[in-house]
Amino acid sequence: MQPSNPPPPTSSIDQRIVASLRSVLSEGIHSLHEPCFHGNEQTYVQDCILSTFVSSVGAYVDRFEQELSTYTGAKRAIATVNGTAALQVALKLAGVQAGDEVLVPTLTFIATANAVNYLGATPHFVDSEAQTLGLDPAALRAWLEHIAEASGDGFRNRVTGSRLRAIVPMHVFGNPCDLDGLQAIARDYRLVLVEDAAESLGSFYHDCHTGTFGKLGTLSFNGNKIITTGGGGAILTNDDDLADQAKHLTTTAKRPHRWEYLHDDIGYNYRMPNLNAALGCAQLEQLPMFLDSKRRLTDRYQEAFGKLIESGTVRLLREPTGCFSNYWLQAIILEERHEHKLESILISTNDAGLMTRPSWSLMHQLPPYQGCPHAPLPVAESLARRIINLPSSAGLV
Amino acid sequence: MQPSNPPPPTSSIDQRIVASLRSVLSEGIHSLHEPCFHGNEQTYVQDCILSTFVSSVGAYVDRFEQELSTYTGAKRAIATVNGTAALQVALKLAGVQAGDEVLVPTLTFIATANAVNYLGATPHFVDSEAQTLGLDPAALRAWLEHIAEASGDGFRNRVTGSRLRAIVPMHVFGNPCDLDGLQAIARDYRLVLVEDAAESLGSFYHDCHTGTFGKLGTLSFNGNKIITTGGGGAILTNDDDLADQAKHLTTTAKRPHRWEYLHDDIGYNYRMPNLNAALGCAQLEQLPMFLDSKRRLTDRYQEAFGKLIESGTVRLLREPTGCFSNYWLQAIILEERHEHKLESILISTNDAGLMTRPSWSLMHQLPPYQGCPHAPLPVAESLARRIINLPSSAGLV
Repeated sequence: MQPSNPPPPTSSIDQRIVASLRSVLSEGIHSLHEPCFHGNEQTYVQDCILSTFVSSVGAYVDRFEQELSTYTGAKRAIATVNGTAALQVALKLAGVQAGDEVLVPTLTFIATANAVNYLGATPHFVDSEAQTLGLDPAALRAWLEHIAEASGDGFRNRVTGSRLRAIVPMHVFGNPCDLDGLQAIARDYRLVLVEDAAESLGSFYHDCHTGTFGKLGTLSFNGNKIITTGGGGAILTNDDDLADQAKHLTTTAKRPHRWEYLHDDIGYNYRMPNLNAALGCAQLEQLPMFLDSKRRLTDRYQEAFGKLIESGTVRLLREPTGCFSNYWLQAIILEERHEHKLESILISTNDAGLMTRPSWSLMHQLPPYQGCPHAPLPVAESLARRIINLPSSAGLV
Repeated sequence: MQPSNPPPPTSSIDQRIVASLRSVLSEGIHSLHEPCFHGNEQTYVQDCILSTFVSSVGAYVDRFEQELSTYTGAKRAIATVNGTAALQVALKLAGVQAGDEVLVPTLTFIATANAVNYLGATPHFVDSEAQTLGLDPAALRAWLEHIAEASGDGFRNRVTGSRLRAIVPMHVFGNPCDLDGLQAIARDYRLVLVEDAAESLGSFYHDCHTGTFGKLGTLSFNGNKIITTGGGGAILTNDDDLADQAKHLTTTAKRPHRWEYLHDDIGYNYRMPNLNAALGCAQLEQLPMFLDSKRRLTDRYQEAFGKLIESGTVRLLREPTGCFSNYWLQAIILEERHEHKLESILISTNDAGLMTRPSWSLMHQLPPYQGCPHAPLPVAESLARRIINLPSSAGLV
């Protein structure tokens, strides 16, 4: 395909962004993210149906879990019905109880906060780092120095009186956040670190896979993720006991018996069906190819947006030094002086058939979470006015 | 296949039951329930993958919902990730709040109680009827006369002080329970009726489909059900507003917008993936055939167990007069004087490769629910010592 002519420097930002995208992407409509099924998907799913084991027990679930464990380096992986379910169970296993507060970014998808809420705990929203878009350890430490006080064997929020129990970083768009800084805070404030790695399968922080730094981590395989199982997720942990508990809790807490139905806890119907795991096994085989493709796309966008970047109009989200991003969802970030152009850029690009999207609404601004405690959130609030996600499918280049 | 010789009348009950089963079933091992995939499963699932819409949006989800609505006669059907999720959301929409009590049978699968618990409400266990195995309206009315007192616009438990909010009958093994009696109680005590029809797709009470009598009803398509989507469920309702809310709550309560992420409530990631709905569409086409097959199997068991039935040793669960059962899971019920033989019958049949299973452990006897309020439960306690489920797959005869 012949790239479009470069836009004249006097055209509007809208036009220049549309032209930059068109110089990378072929004609026609491009969604934000489409899955690619060019491997063994049909074969494995057909085999799964032939086996009659399509539900919560089956060879593909076991295989998918084993391959996730091998790929991520986590000792154990437990497949679940989706990423939200994985995070809810991981938080429960981390000891989060009703009445606790859990530190989560305000710049995240609502699942992060919902998983906290489902346990009767309260999300306590904290700020993000401009470069990584993930939780900012410096801002968090300053905030905790202000509001946390030692209580029993941990810390509590001196304003609400609630126990501060856990911290849940989310690797935004697959970009690893500052785990070293967050691990230090977790240690100092006796917080359990649970990583929401829903978006970051294939992303590494200093040679270790995201989701393996905390006590537990979670993945998502929703239809828009780098690999998909239709709907699905997984819990990662290096602790065999927690892994066994995770499997127990996600399978209605039923104790193994030849025929008896003994449930020793209130568990969940959260196991991934074998049919979905079959799709996942085929997708996981193609992950290296998807990662290559997404990296190439980032480079192409870097080139295409070169002038807009050089002129300080936008920057392209790139992985931090020493990290490897899966580049799941490509993003440009408008410089502050252009933030008032966000809406018109979204309209122009979407009208041109190039699907773009702003940041999620910030959690502390959503009706159901407006009353929750939060730190000052100047960076997240600014980023939310400036982030634009770009078409990111692995099949684009 | 040549049926086995009839057992001599002097042999043990164990041997006679094994022989009766063998006279119906072919040689080899028979599980309790296996799905049958002899229709368009491969075609639809392949088509779904080719479409790339495998996740929470897609044509098969819409079609599956439409076909469920048509089949059950419910105005609307909303597909969910499983039956437990469907019941949780149905109860939420029925107005169940934290601190409420919900009347549920003790003789049920744990999902019925768990769905109540997830909302912060308490299951209040009530007794079953010997003939239908479902909630007993007479016993329930007597119990409510004893413990319910009018309070505000409803009734509360005079012992605990909690509001009595809803009643959740479950149609055990597909056998319709006495909905007329329960509807009258719901009316008299201002309880919302929500039917757990997880096991009774294809079962009708007086010409209307189970799950359509209450304000909301729920279905399950787990791997062991009469039709399966791998994992899945559905909410049924005749109320468009409740249906819209159900769809909203099961899709993270996100308001429709071209690109914005505005969630106006704490919803759930409970939508059925399109991949699973594709399987469901193929399965639903075969439901009439499965129903025929299961009815034939009941008749065959009736004949095979004839002498044991005539001698008052066991009875076979049969649909109540005026009802149509899907005969999802076949069951014999030992007469009381033989209940001490339950364990040895389970061992003998399972050792012979004929999978049988006792009743679920009763909810009020399970560790997580031992502290919950309950009525006297003599019938359920007796039934739990005497129920034996038999191999029930649609493909058996």
